[in-house]
Amino acid sequence: MEKENKLYEGKAKIIYSTSDPSLVIQYFKDDATAFDARKKGTIIDKGVYNNKISTVIFELLEKEGIPTHFIRQIDDREMLVKKLTIFPIEVVIRNRIAGSLAKRFGMEEGGELQTSILEFYYKNDALHDPMINEDHIRVFGFAKDDDLAYIKDISHKINRILTGFFDELGIILVDYKLEFGRTPSGSICLADEITPDGCRLWDKKTLKKLDKDRFRWDLGEVEDAYQEVFKRVCKEADIQ
Amino acid sequence: MEKENKLYEGKAKIIYSTSDPSLVIQYFKDDATAFDARKKGTIIDKGVYNNKISTVIFELLEKEGIPTHFIRQIDDREMLVKKLTIFPIEVVIRNRIAGSLAKRFGMEEGGELQTSILEFYYKNDALHDPMINEDHIRVFGFAKDDDLAYIKDISHKINRILTGFFDELGIILVDYKLEFGRTPSGSICLADEITPDGCRLWDKKTLKKLDKDRFRWDLGEVEDAYQEVFKRVCKEADIQ
Repeated sequence: MEKENKLYEGKAKIIYSTSDPSLVIQYFKDDATAFDARKKGTIIDKGVYNNKISTVIFELLEKEGIPTHFIRQIDDREMLVKKLTIFPIEVVIRNRIAGSLAKRFGMEEGGELQTSILEFYYKNDALHDPMINEDHIRVFGFAKDDDLAYIKDISHKINRILTGFFDELGIILVDYKLEFGRTPSGSICLADEITPDGCRLWDKKTLKKLDKDRFRWDLGEVEDAYQEVFKRVCKEADIQ
Repeated sequence: MEKENKLYEGKAKIIYSTSDPSLVIQYFKDDATAFDARKKGTIIDKGVYNNKISTVIFELLEKEGIPTHFIRQIDDREMLVKKLTIFPIEVVIRNRIAGSLAKRFGMEEGGELQTSILEFYYKNDALHDPMINEDHIRVFGFAKDDDLAYIKDISHKINRILTGFFDELGIILVDYKLEFGRTPSGSICLADEITPDGCRLWDKKTLKKLDKDRFRWDLGEVEDAYQEVFKRVCKEADIQ
């Protein structure tokens, strides 16, 4: 399957059409942004790492019965996926206190949550992706009631699978973002990517950050962190 | 029932103990604040208007089966109420787009909502009362699941009663804040006040703002607006 026209270029990926109107190629870039794209940079080979990490995770989730947009990895930086109409909401799942949750509640990073917290954000760059609730989603028509119930349910299932998966790799899945979309036939799939760009991943023993927070906060060893996650995820994939 | 010790002084009210440990007096001040108390001022006789407006509304709600902390009006500025342990959450009910909802979604003020939107905020001055969701309330223990379900249910009931009540007065109940607390015996009551300080109230014909937005945005005729709501509410109370 070859790339045809560029349909969309985002901060970290480019979407290309293919000869099959139901399929698109997502190309993973090395570009990194943070703080609402006010900070920009490059993380060498991030695209290669993220493509492979996402591939392994989408394959795992599919095996566990979670519908995803993933079809197959094409090459180092390209993945063939289903073309979806994306819901304009980001689902954030939190297992520990970090990032904006710590800030919002004036809490220290790192605290464990007795059960996971699910948050919704409205995907809108101009409005800086504000936090929203289920009433906003319902009344403004971002998703129908039954679709939202399904997205919540599947998000909790994904969290159970991924926390276990990363735990086996010696990694704490602190928090992460999910996006969902709908195929032309109406079924809802997990979309986008699952990578250190959108997940907070901490080493279980040292609590070292292995994710985009290293870029965000100039912590150094940015590429090393992505490569470390890549290595552990690939090793796990080989064992399976 | 006489005032004893000052227990708490807030932005618009003072709470005094009484000889009965289960009852307190809330005294309505003329002080007005806005924008996280960065703007301060006085609205002459606001305390008198708000005490009476709240009295009429609490009496109406009680008659309709909503438990409130209201016992009786004592005088122009004082109301005898049950002493409650207040839940650290504000419930905001929205029937039209205005205020922070308009800002959050980049929408014009005034748009009607097909059904009401309910939002939760964490009552915490230092954190600037951040918006929260039901997972935050549950995981951080701000309210138990069944208490939260009850608060949501009763909030919707209150909204049905109050939108009808204000509509009869030629007023649109645009949005407003509710607080709830628990008596020592465990029952949950509506607390605080229902006044133009915490409600957006627009004249139905002219859409003129009859609430604290006149103070907030220096629209003039601030006292007139509070008095206008006071007059219409009292007239309605007399008719009943």
